[in-house]
Amino acid sequence: MKNIVILGSTGSIGTQTLDVVRKSNEFRVIGLTCYNNIELMKEQIEEFKPEFVAVKDNDKALSLKKMINTRTEIISGEEGINKVASLPNIQMVVIAIEGIAALIPTIKAIEAGHDIALASKECLVTGGHIIKRLANEKNVNILPVDSEHNAIYQCIQSGKKEFVNRLIITASGGPFRGKTVDELKCVTVEEALKHPNWKMGKKITIDSATLMNKGFEVIEAKWLFDMPIDKIEVVVHKESIIHSMVEFIDGSIIAEMATPDMRIPIQYALNFPNRKYIDGVSYLDVTKIGKLSFEKPDIKTFRCLQLAYDALKEGGTMTTVLNTADEVAVQLFLKKIISFNDIPYIIEKYMNNHKNIINPELNDIIEVDREIREKIKSEYMR
Amino acid sequence: MKNIVILGSTGSIGTQTLDVVRKSNEFRVIGLTCYNNIELMKEQIEEFKPEFVAVKDNDKALSLKKMINTRTEIISGEEGINKVASLPNIQMVVIAIEGIAALIPTIKAIEAGHDIALASKECLVTGGHIIKRLANEKNVNILPVDSEHNAIYQCIQSGKKEFVNRLIITASGGPFRGKTVDELKCVTVEEALKHPNWKMGKKITIDSATLMNKGFEVIEAKWLFDMPIDKIEVVVHKESIIHSMVEFIDGSIIAEMATPDMRIPIQYALNFPNRKYIDGVSYLDVTKIGKLSFEKPDIKTFRCLQLAYDALKEGGTMTTVLNTADEVAVQLFLKKIISFNDIPYIIEKYMNNHKNIINPELNDIIEVDREIREKIKSEYMR
Repeated sequence: MKNIVILGSTGSIGTQTLDVVRKSNEFRVIGLTCYNNIELMKEQIEEFKPEFVAVKDNDKALSLKKMINTRTEIISGEEGINKVASLPNIQMVVIAIEGIAALIPTIKAIEAGHDIALASKECLVTGGHIIKRLANEKNVNILPVDSEHNAIYQCIQSGKKEFVNRLIITASGGPFRGKTVDELKCVTVEEALKHPNWKMGKKITIDSATLMNKGFEVIEAKWLFDMPIDKIEVVVHKESIIHSMVEFIDGSIIAEMATPDMRIPIQYALNFPNRKYIDGVSYLDVTKIGKLSFEKPDIKTFRCLQLAYDALKEGGTMTTVLNTADEVAVQLFLKKIISFNDIPYIIEKYMNNHKNIINPELNDIIEVDREIREKIKSEYMR
Repeated sequence: MKNIVILGSTGSIGTQTLDVVRKSNEFRVIGLTCYNNIELMKEQIEEFKPEFVAVKDNDKALSLKKMINTRTEIISGEEGINKVASLPNIQMVVIAIEGIAALIPTIKAIEAGHDIALASKECLVTGGHIIKRLANEKNVNILPVDSEHNAIYQCIQSGKKEFVNRLIITASGGPFRGKTVDELKCVTVEEALKHPNWKMGKKITIDSATLMNKGFEVIEAKWLFDMPIDKIEVVVHKESIIHSMVEFIDGSIIAEMATPDMRIPIQYALNFPNRKYIDGVSYLDVTKIGKLSFEKPDIKTFRCLQLAYDALKEGGTMTTVLNTADEVAVQLFLKKIISFNDIPYIIEKYMNNHKNIINPELNDIIEVDREIREKIKSEYMR
């Protein structure tokens, strides 16, 4: 039995992780956390009987206490979440918190020496250098849950790290693949939320439509696999069957493919180096798919991807600006305050105006995030 | 430096192996063998200066002796080849002899404790049980050179053997993919020799056109990877970019792809677990290929594939009948004595008339091979 903790258990990855746990006999859920969805958390408590649950929102935590009659200890606030992240006798902490809020709990979990199953992109995008340094110091494994990085992790097992020549991250291209900048001007929130292949949270679905999601993945890949930026390539593969590939120096490319079902990479991260079939997962029949296609991404139209490469080249707090500006811009787009094409416009503007801090401390990152968030909100949400 | 021996160095795989050696600094060629192509062997001796060369044909061996002025010792006959196969202080023996003639030298090399890079399908097709038993006893590694098995070997590295669910061998489908039995009646030798993707020897090119080559590969895969027959599947993939795949129990499929260049699997077999770039090998750009396609094989039209599954199910000497009948039938087709559709007809007839010997000794295999060979020749070459 592995004792696990899931941070962000009421979100898309969180609930799918619990489905993997439900269908395995190998995991005991010790801790769960959520932002404010206490109705779902109540159900999760009743089913999985965790020892600790942290709710970010203090009032919601109080309400939850009154709703349950198990022995589960309910705690609250950022402090509560950090406590659950660093509980003793834990073999794996699943980080499924959306946004930069994942950063500090991830650091707490690593400091406690726990292996990490990482689904939150923002941790590595903003604090990759801190997390990798700490993980090395603490001898902690970071298993990526994102289907792309999970694929790369699997493919790299096929050879020695020193013989890797290139990482090839596949992108579905999102719902607007093939469209021009002009055509993107008037796309609606509803259209942007229609991802062709994956069912995901709203923020990441919009990021898929802008290709910023792929940009974040390039940055994550740099940190996860210690690869230089010019060795990380994005290829549009609209079927989302090949989840990513690794090219070795001898010319062999190893690819991982599977039906688009997040429970596959989740179970891989939880069971590594073993593998387990999760009831309900479909095996892939390539002859039913028939064709797999590949094309170069259109970075002139989908400028967010280029902005991510630019931010990564700059390094420092520039990737935090990229991340925060994108997070706020996507919120503004979802609230129909700005248009789809305003998203890269806003990000670029704030990147251009940022005085980069090279090799930032955690406090610098948090400060830059706060500052950019406030500035954009005050500019656009008056 | 690895000391290597190449059996069958003047054939297609043999010359490509020497090209890999030429472009590496890691290998010293100690021994070479050929059937009768002494003109090319003379050049190879001058370039690689092996200590021993064996020529199967005794007269040709004598002629070669007079042609060279190096210290290379020229020996001849089956005995000579077996001697080169079992030379001392060798780290790798490349088996690139065409046909069942490869079987005994392969056994000799394994008995001598040498690791094997295996390109000759016939060894495992006819004597798989003997070779695997011996290799296990002698703790000898068998590295497959065939692009399909080499791909599977690479893909299996990505997980633990116990979690493999299925091997998926890709087939180009050959030059006649999509044709009906009727359309195949009148195809010519010249048409059959036009393989869409690979440049190979004549025998294997015809075997690719009948899909018998894929049938042999299913049998090889059974022995190489210790997989039951119902876990080995063939998928037609006309682009020959994905060389094969491994499905794990969790639903992940790991695939290997590369430009169709045999030097890639050859260097992999020679360098394993390391990898080396061989000058002249092209990296693959999936966006230039654009599309990869998959379909189920048409085993009603290409009956050789079904016959191979049937022979493997029967086991014993039935796979030797399959192999020998195919070898002779292909010779007859190349000599324009029989038609393309006669190839499966002859094989099936001889399989139906064969009294199977279960768990045969080496002598049984050699005897069945001799008998089938003579019978078919006497029936068709009067």
